[in-house]
Amino acid sequence: MAKPSLPQGTRDFSAEVVRKRNYIFSTIKAVFEIYGFEPLETPAMENLETLMGKYGDEGDKLIFKVLNNGLNNPKNIDKAKAGFEKLMEGKSTAELTERALKYDLTIPFARHVAMNHTKLTFPHRRYQVQPVWRADRPQKGRYREFTQCDADIVGSTSLMNEVELANMYHQVFINLNLPGYQLKINNRKILAALSLLAGGQEKMIDITIAIDKLDKIGLEKVKEELRLKELTEEQISVIEKYLTITGSNLDRIEQIKSLLGHISQGAQGINELEQILNLLRNVNIEIDFTLARGLNYYTGSIFEVKAPNEVQMGSIGGGGRYDDLTGLFDVPGIPGVGISFGVDRIFDVLEELQLFPTQVDAGTQVIFFNMGAAESIFAFGIMQQLRAQSIPCELYHEPVKINKQFSYAERKKIPFAVIIGSKEMEQNYCLVKNLSTGVQEVVVFDRLQDFFKQV
Amino acid sequence: MAKPSLPQGTRDFSAEVVRKRNYIFSTIKAVFEIYGFEPLETPAMENLETLMGKYGDEGDKLIFKVLNNGLNNPKNIDKAKAGFEKLMEGKSTAELTERALKYDLTIPFARHVAMNHTKLTFPHRRYQVQPVWRADRPQKGRYREFTQCDADIVGSTSLMNEVELANMYHQVFINLNLPGYQLKINNRKILAALSLLAGGQEKMIDITIAIDKLDKIGLEKVKEELRLKELTEEQISVIEKYLTITGSNLDRIEQIKSLLGHISQGAQGINELEQILNLLRNVNIEIDFTLARGLNYYTGSIFEVKAPNEVQMGSIGGGGRYDDLTGLFDVPGIPGVGISFGVDRIFDVLEELQLFPTQVDAGTQVIFFNMGAAESIFAFGIMQQLRAQSIPCELYHEPVKINKQFSYAERKKIPFAVIIGSKEMEQNYCLVKNLSTGVQEVVVFDRLQDFFKQV
Repeated sequence: MAKPSLPQGTRDFSAEVVRKRNYIFSTIKAVFEIYGFEPLETPAMENLETLMGKYGDEGDKLIFKVLNNGLNNPKNIDKAKAGFEKLMEGKSTAELTERALKYDLTIPFARHVAMNHTKLTFPHRRYQVQPVWRADRPQKGRYREFTQCDADIVGSTSLMNEVELANMYHQVFINLNLPGYQLKINNRKILAALSLLAGGQEKMIDITIAIDKLDKIGLEKVKEELRLKELTEEQISVIEKYLTITGSNLDRIEQIKSLLGHISQGAQGINELEQILNLLRNVNIEIDFTLARGLNYYTGSIFEVKAPNEVQMGSIGGGGRYDDLTGLFDVPGIPGVGISFGVDRIFDVLEELQLFPTQVDAGTQVIFFNMGAAESIFAFGIMQQLRAQSIPCELYHEPVKINKQFSYAERKKIPFAVIIGSKEMEQNYCLVKNLSTGVQEVVVFDRLQDFFKQV
Repeated sequence: MAKPSLPQGTRDFSAEVVRKRNYIFSTIKAVFEIYGFEPLETPAMENLETLMGKYGDEGDKLIFKVLNNGLNNPKNIDKAKAGFEKLMEGKSTAELTERALKYDLTIPFARHVAMNHTKLTFPHRRYQVQPVWRADRPQKGRYREFTQCDADIVGSTSLMNEVELANMYHQVFINLNLPGYQLKINNRKILAALSLLAGGQEKMIDITIAIDKLDKIGLEKVKEELRLKELTEEQISVIEKYLTITGSNLDRIEQIKSLLGHISQGAQGINELEQILNLLRNVNIEIDFTLARGLNYYTGSIFEVKAPNEVQMGSIGGGGRYDDLTGLFDVPGIPGVGISFGVDRIFDVLEELQLFPTQVDAGTQVIFFNMGAAESIFAFGIMQQLRAQSIPCELYHEPVKINKQFSYAERKKIPFAVIIGSKEMEQNYCLVKNLSTGVQEVVVFDRLQDFFKQV
């Protein structure tokens, strides 16, 4: 057969990468747990109809659909053919594919809440760290299988929830040793008020989409785009005024009040922002009125986290408030707010800034060299005592030349080797060699556990 | 739309279940790490050709295939149609489905080793804990998405590896508080010798399959099945003698020696068994010559773990030695031995025997009641001090009637409530109520952290 390979856009994670990823996951999960969030796991596959129509036309095309099994069974053939015809017409078709791989964690969460809303206790705080799949064109930093990491509080409109989530962002990035992270906040109600003032409500999506590009294309191009959407120069100048608000958070609040405070939605959004900021005295957070977040289901606060300035990375997290999580599944009246961590990007940032703690990648700590049949059986017994103290150990699998055993230890970056020959067996001690410094010590067996617990 | 539902044979895992499953996973992973095994993660999707033809015809039918995207794009339509025709003829078809969900962890591991064999350090110890997917008919205890938990040592024929794996089984089940587990061992070479003696090598698969059913159908039915496979009564009586070997491990070794010791493969298998048992003095392990393990790729030692007798569960783990992991991918000469844990069944056993530690399911430890706007802001500050000590806390999201807040705490099984009203704010103390005993204490703020660290 052809040389084995991986599907495009997917990755094997070797030990080093798994351990570094787990460091990120466990740092985030620990904060989630301390903030009273509960884990949820949903299956990789959802019913196709649960997913279709939830991500817009472009999103729908990126959903990986799973072929039904047994389609060539005589009793299924007609159905399969009908399904295939529909597929060719670009229609959704359960005859051929009843199931699909989940595309994000939000819709499966909404499906879970809709199915269980009578049993859940609201407000419900859940977190979810699982892979999702998208048939996107792979490129640097974009994969077809990647892990999402979400926390949401649903069933409550209290702004205290925004305060909780902002604190969680803060705590996670402090714990990851990334104090230079930039947490930005805005409110969709303020964007709605801006649209009312500069073009009308029906222009809100156009205006949001244009503003969302500010970072990438700059102010002049944004203005051009707004002209194409038939905004007047007067309207565009209001938007320009909005986009060039600067200063401290308090300064910005003053300026936005004078621009949009007379519009009821604007006043409401500004008031929400002020309340949240008042409760976030210890968190480094910045009002950024240019923050728009493309997703149209956000209705209140929106968040974004940028990597520290010294790395070129952009957003490493984002989230916001939505009015209605489960309406799509006929269970209305469950508002919520959520945040997400961009784990793959956080990984790259920590790697670039060399912020992974060195002990994260620790595997085997001690290798017992195999000095012969009787010696290795003896060494095995000593090794088991260390393992009982949770010290990761290995015994080399066969009594080959010592050089070969050293080279194995070196390639695996094992820090210590223990050598027990026939003399050592008799005299109750062993040689312990530090493989990075080359220093060798004599340690009696009784002291061996303590020796390794101290290093 | 229709009421939302889950695909048949899949499950949502709520917080309690996730936490209990994580307890099992982390117990197993901790032992793997202490034994020097390294984690590997492979993607959910593999190329279809990596999987097809590896699991037999029945297995192939149970593989979930993922539909290619963009099939109705004009430039793909002809290919799609050709692919669909092949599918209807029961053929494998990359035109329609290039990818599929992984069916087990062994073939993806083999694919990984084949792709990376020049870079890996052998013997290579890897463990992998990931979901796999099978389009099997769902039934009690059988799911379409379930988690496998494997550890393998590849690139070595040393029997020390079997000793390591048996010790790991022992340690995991001791750590899970299941000392009544039954670890059984046999050797396929002994089964091969039996076949030589009773029917010829070409009958080995028939004989193995029949023996494998002994537990379920009993000796008489096994004999009937062997008769159908055209074994003579004399041959069947040899097999019966084999299957009725009893006594201590030493007794069994004696009996098997007299039955099969004169056949070279038998002698070899018996010798391997003896060597392994000699090194397993501290592990509760039992020779079981009726153990066959259906999988035909096993060539040496085979293992099986049964749940303690007090639960009806059958196998909760199994494994064995194979000669050639990656030959299927054109990289010959990599032998290995591996074991697997049946996590879903272990879960059911621990649940039935009530062996999950009570603290496993601990979520929020302390709820701060919301006694009003100023009080809740004050309480929030106090709560943040507890969270900084890693004590999981929540503040109720709005100042509603205290009964409603109690009922929330009760439903979420939160053990303690902290009440801070205006009087308490002034006087620097709070009321702490133990929600299971109803006992209420006055605790000054300075002592609050210590109070919760002690409970």
